[in-house]
Amino acid sequence: MDQDPTQAQETLLAEVLDRFATTPDPRLRQLLLALIRHLHEFVRESRPTWQEWEAAMAFCARAAAVTGPGRNEFIALSDAVGLTMQVLASSQPKPPGATIPTLIGPFHLANAPWFPNGADIAGAAQGERLHVSGRVLDIAGEPVAGAILSVWHSDERGLYDVQDDPAAKGLWARGRLRSTQDGGFAFWTVMPAAYPAPMDAALGDLIGSTTRMHWRPAHLHVAIEAPENQTAETELEGLTTHVFVRGSPYLDQDFAFGVRPGLVADFTLQPPGIAPDGRVMAEPYRTLTFDFVLTRKRQAGSPFP
Amino acid sequence: MDQDPTQAQETLLAEVLDRFATTPDPRLRQLLLALIRHLHEFVRESRPTWQEWEAAMAFCARAAAVTGPGRNEFIALSDAVGLTMQVLASSQPKPPGATIPTLIGPFHLANAPWFPNGADIAGAAQGERLHVSGRVLDIAGEPVAGAILSVWHSDERGLYDVQDDPAAKGLWARGRLRSTQDGGFAFWTVMPAAYPAPMDAALGDLIGSTTRMHWRPAHLHVAIEAPENQTAETELEGLTTHVFVRGSPYLDQDFAFGVRPGLVADFTLQPPGIAPDGRVMAEPYRTLTFDFVLTRKRQAGSPFP
Repeated sequence: MDQDPTQAQETLLAEVLDRFATTPDPRLRQLLLALIRHLHEFVRESRPTWQEWEAAMAFCARAAAVTGPGRNEFIALSDAVGLTMQVLASSQPKPPGATIPTLIGPFHLANAPWFPNGADIAGAAQGERLHVSGRVLDIAGEPVAGAILSVWHSDERGLYDVQDDPAAKGLWARGRLRSTQDGGFAFWTVMPAAYPAPMDAALGDLIGSTTRMHWRPAHLHVAIEAPENQTAETELEGLTTHVFVRGSPYLDQDFAFGVRPGLVADFTLQPPGIAPDGRVMAEPYRTLTFDFVLTRKRQAGSPFP
Repeated sequence: MDQDPTQAQETLLAEVLDRFATTPDPRLRQLLLALIRHLHEFVRESRPTWQEWEAAMAFCARAAAVTGPGRNEFIALSDAVGLTMQVLASSQPKPPGATIPTLIGPFHLANAPWFPNGADIAGAAQGERLHVSGRVLDIAGEPVAGAILSVWHSDERGLYDVQDDPAAKGLWARGRLRSTQDGGFAFWTVMPAAYPAPMDAALGDLIGSTTRMHWRPAHLHVAIEAPENQTAETELEGLTTHVFVRGSPYLDQDFAFGVRPGLVADFTLQPPGIAPDGRVMAEPYRTLTFDFVLTRKRQAGSPFP
């Protein structure tokens, strides 16, 4: 080469940064320049070979091949290397008493079916029956009426509806409902199970090349949107979180690093009899009672709402 | 939160690194730990919000949607942020006299059709006729017989066959041939044109949010595989490179940072008449003569072959 290699590498990085330095949006510029600098530093530090770079590009293509509506392999990868949780730890500090957010996972759907409060969202899902109830509150303990709860979770096999056979069975164990005037919500579903990370694509290649455990403990996904009728002053922050089943295997080694304080709860085994909503249960079932505590949207410069 | 946020971030990173620290393959372990550390550092430095992380995941999904046989948007992204060239600069230093490698781009196909030496590979491609000839040599100037040259490039519109209508028109301006006993090769095709980066997906979102020029100067892609009949001692390194058209627009501002020393050549305008291979040309045409100089495979610990 005409140039000293180290010199060439620095010249290249400077040229790349220079070309992105005029990005008009200041926040996007900050993110792009920092990400580009770290990726170049990674390359200069680790010196991937051409074959390793090709393998990385093929890895991305393999993640791309399974990404589509209802599944985003890049989210699973971000979860697997703890990046999702690092974003939450860095950007969403919460005051004591608030429900802690955790990752969203690869299987969220924006437009889950609506259900009335108290309905059974299980659909074609099989498993032990579970009654879930609780309240949506703000940090002062006041009820939050009209919040939209979106719920999705695995069945007794540890599969999600989108991994099953949506064409034949439709969506199941997935739905949206609104909190009542007193912030309450309730629904029936089935117990979620622990499950292995999907190993059929890029994530599987990654996990398979390590000695890592690749399971997630049993959990419900809950995403809460604050009601629309708020002023800027009282506006609440949405919350994406899980409720983990106390006693589930893998609680201390979740492959996605998603278990956070306050998110593990009792899914209490109940004998056959009259359920909390009056339903007569011929078989044993479980109940979960859980309150979600939302915080105000953070003001600029304030670490807490 | 129960924990100081900075403490929680450090604990998380340590836990993630710990779980990947037992990756059996030492080189993969090194790469994974370094990449994970840099990505976490990026997050801790830049503090992406949950919405920014969601936008990043949607960006990956948008890249995934157009990735498939004949196109890999992640390669285009790696090119656009100079990462591909940083890999080459870090990992493939070349001695004086060797042909310098450059990026492969998103449109390479592993199984391009075979042609005999001297054939016309243009197929359905339109453009000014171009005759290409030269030799494959080793660094000592000896001919390399039986090397496989894979060639692919854009037409006069700046499009590749895989962006056009492969079902109706088949592949065009794309082919493989072998060097002759004296290392020679020759083929006919059409002139390549400068072209904008494909702006219909994630790369377009990225480039569109900057003020960057998003064109590539006109070039031929050439990838050379060394012949199979070599001993470990004499084994040659494959080469992926371009030949750029001298005088093409954007030579000094290639969006992919791919222009490197020695890769710009004259595509000489010729009057109608007898072409180098005896063909009678009724219209003006162009000729390119270019020798590709391969190096030996690098021995461990040696910067040059």
